[in-house]
Amino acid sequence: MPLNPADEIFAETLRAVLLEGVLRPVEPRYLSEPRGRLAGQAGLLALPRDVEDVSALVRAAAEARVPVVPYGGGTGLVGGQVMPDGPRPLVISLERMSAIRTVHPADNVLVAEAGAVLADVQAAARTAGRLFPLSLAAEGSARIGGTLATNAGGVNVLRYGNARDLCLGLEAVLPDGAIWHGLRRLRKDNTGYDLRNLLIGAEGTLGIITAAALKLCPVPAGQGTAMLVVSSPRAALDLLEMARDRLGEGISAFELIHGQGLEFLAETLPDLRQPFDMPPEWCVLVELGLAAGLDPAAALEDLFADALARGLVRDGVVAQSQAQRDELWSVREHIPEANKRIGAVSSHDISVPISAIPEFIRRGGELLARFGDIRINCFGHLGDGNLHYNVFPAAGRTRSDYDGLRWEVQRAVHDLVHDMGGSVSAEHGIGRIKVAELERYGDPAKLSAMRAIKAALDPAGIMNPGAVLRMNQDRLGVPSGP
Amino acid sequence: MPLNPADEIFAETLRAVLLEGVLRPVEPRYLSEPRGRLAGQAGLLALPRDVEDVSALVRAAAEARVPVVPYGGGTGLVGGQVMPDGPRPLVISLERMSAIRTVHPADNVLVAEAGAVLADVQAAARTAGRLFPLSLAAEGSARIGGTLATNAGGVNVLRYGNARDLCLGLEAVLPDGAIWHGLRRLRKDNTGYDLRNLLIGAEGTLGIITAAALKLCPVPAGQGTAMLVVSSPRAALDLLEMARDRLGEGISAFELIHGQGLEFLAETLPDLRQPFDMPPEWCVLVELGLAAGLDPAAALEDLFADALARGLVRDGVVAQSQAQRDELWSVREHIPEANKRIGAVSSHDISVPISAIPEFIRRGGELLARFGDIRINCFGHLGDGNLHYNVFPAAGRTRSDYDGLRWEVQRAVHDLVHDMGGSVSAEHGIGRIKVAELERYGDPAKLSAMRAIKAALDPAGIMNPGAVLRMNQDRLGVPSGP
Repeated sequence: MPLNPADEIFAETLRAVLLEGVLRPVEPRYLSEPRGRLAGQAGLLALPRDVEDVSALVRAAAEARVPVVPYGGGTGLVGGQVMPDGPRPLVISLERMSAIRTVHPADNVLVAEAGAVLADVQAAARTAGRLFPLSLAAEGSARIGGTLATNAGGVNVLRYGNARDLCLGLEAVLPDGAIWHGLRRLRKDNTGYDLRNLLIGAEGTLGIITAAALKLCPVPAGQGTAMLVVSSPRAALDLLEMARDRLGEGISAFELIHGQGLEFLAETLPDLRQPFDMPPEWCVLVELGLAAGLDPAAALEDLFADALARGLVRDGVVAQSQAQRDELWSVREHIPEANKRIGAVSSHDISVPISAIPEFIRRGGELLARFGDIRINCFGHLGDGNLHYNVFPAAGRTRSDYDGLRWEVQRAVHDLVHDMGGSVSAEHGIGRIKVAELERYGDPAKLSAMRAIKAALDPAGIMNPGAVLRMNQDRLGVPSGP
Repeated sequence: MPLNPADEIFAETLRAVLLEGVLRPVEPRYLSEPRGRLAGQAGLLALPRDVEDVSALVRAAAEARVPVVPYGGGTGLVGGQVMPDGPRPLVISLERMSAIRTVHPADNVLVAEAGAVLADVQAAARTAGRLFPLSLAAEGSARIGGTLATNAGGVNVLRYGNARDLCLGLEAVLPDGAIWHGLRRLRKDNTGYDLRNLLIGAEGTLGIITAAALKLCPVPAGQGTAMLVVSSPRAALDLLEMARDRLGEGISAFELIHGQGLEFLAETLPDLRQPFDMPPEWCVLVELGLAAGLDPAAALEDLFADALARGLVRDGVVAQSQAQRDELWSVREHIPEANKRIGAVSSHDISVPISAIPEFIRRGGELLARFGDIRINCFGHLGDGNLHYNVFPAAGRTRSDYDGLRWEVQRAVHDLVHDMGGSVSAEHGIGRIKVAELERYGDPAKLSAMRAIKAALDPAGIMNPGAVLRMNQDRLGVPSGP
């Protein structure tokens, strides 16, 4: 059965069940994504005020078989938030549902609506003397519903886990419009299937998250940051192991940075202060958060000295103030912006087993050598085995010079990742841009189970069609192939 | 469509696809559960050697519409492992698939087959210089597949999470016999729906877990244990808060113990050494695991002294040796055995928001007063908001004297839990014993989604029928009611 567009007739249906002001004129900002790879379309835009509005919208869409695209902060990098083809959808933006509903410091829980901006959730936790550790470059605009729908990662996963590990309960509207009241703030609840984790990471294809009970953590008594020049990715791993032996779970982040990224920064953001005069080939950013009684700067100095003695580290900077900590983090956090300004041929958000990182970097370099003159900026969350392995034009050339090579480069990188037991989407999700990759590399039994679950929960196929799973051709209203 | 029994005709079908020795005579030990509440039945018993055997068994069962009951260590407390009614099932015990397949210390990952005993997994992790933190009273016989299928909890959830939080990947056989090869050892993998967490906690109703990639953790440099007498549950919570402010994530366990439990221990296990001459009304068992440079015993002494000064604590023991640590833990770990010997009227594995524990204990006591002469032993994982709230006969009376009251007591306790935003199954699961409770207290939208998922993945309804979700009457081969 084909889906129907969100047209004026459907708008009339909605006006009959909604208060004025929920339906809004479609604005262009809802139709683009950060890297400009996909152009969205929308028949209608709705800005619900509460879960009942969302329920009414979805129920009406299900009855009329109108596609729905949930919209959070719009920061996703795989096109999950824009629908470029098929009947024009109803876009539902959660931005008006941005309240921090309650904070329960004694339970280490905060309940936020889906439209709350991640940075605001972090701030509310801090005000309560707690830490909400999910942290990523887009935190100033990413919204909690979207970070959960995509199971966002970021820089503190090593210690605190992905978004799903930080969620205790959800309120959500399922594809038939039913409201799931699952906002429990319990640490243990074994009553039935894990619907929470099914919706987390489903990228809006199984329902719309409207609020979440989030885990808060103790604020570490002391924090410290260092940037250490390592002799190789292998040495970086040995340093991580050494740090873990001493500091256990005290390591909050362990980020690998390649000299190419520092050169891109120098080229595109020359005012940004860098810790080393000459960009080293490899360095790591280490962040500690330690309990009372331990001195993070001293612990980093010790680690630095011993790693120097063992030949793992060649140079380094241990931050002596909050300003210096911010400066080191600023280097790391601006690499994506520098990348964007250079313009990648192909970007890869991949993971492999942590111990396989050096081999992956070596084999990746060998593999890409055959594409001739390119630059590789490989950086990311070493402690999670997650690299942003991005391929750039040679100096003086541009992205468009490589148009013919893009898919070959991607195929080569993803084949290698898959061959090494890795994932072709570590933290960004599938969205629409990686649907074919999921079909190529996904386990057939899992894909079959996913399709069965999608058909069971969303029989009309209205929820974010074409994201994660390919849209059935009959939903497009065009005859399927012979 | 009715299910068919696992009879001799089906056995012939199986013999045609399996090597000799997989089918075994049914033994009584597969038909009972620890508390003796349900008596199982079985038509056939299979002991597969590998995942292909499991796949062949399930595929044949799906084709013949024969019910399958997966069997792990048999330690579950809610009857998920025994099927008392319906057509006689094929019981599949994973006990021969007990290998630790690989250990990857550098990745902090261990891959175990489903039949590996939890204690053996812990030991293999220790041998590799790592910690597998899942720890519970039945760890000497519980098997990894079962602990994952039930999302087991235990004493270290406060710090390390439930079983689901300790699993990175699964190999499983789905209800059509397809093998899902999902044994990835990645920290980040956002490629599609979270089938792993859907199978974890599904209690064998959506497939059979055959192997798991498990997270290992650093072994804390130093551990310490104390048992402190607190003036009330409120004081216990204040002590937890105080400990958290100082020691952050260093608190591995925080268990509440009521004097009733210590009295039961003295009565039923008089040789077990107890730390206090007179059982205090309330005490807590605190376990620390700290990084190098910190002294856990000293940290506990400081906490004890300051809590004494604040009036939260009245007395206490800080273990000065491993032997003393073991002794304190032995008190905690033998309470379930003492309870069993006394014989409970009704047992409740409940959770509420942590901050609501004192109110729950107060209101629970008031509520049960109307049932007259009873004894309440309330103990458990305070740091998780999870209590084992068990009701016993008065001294000199027995469980059978209260037969008429059992369900009323349970209803009263569970209504209170539900009213306080809690869960009527915190860590034991639903199994068959709590199906009616799930129907009563579960969110209707979630239940409806669960039924849709079950029907989609297991359309014949063969996987552990009657567990978690009620068996369709037509599957029993009897006409459904008017």
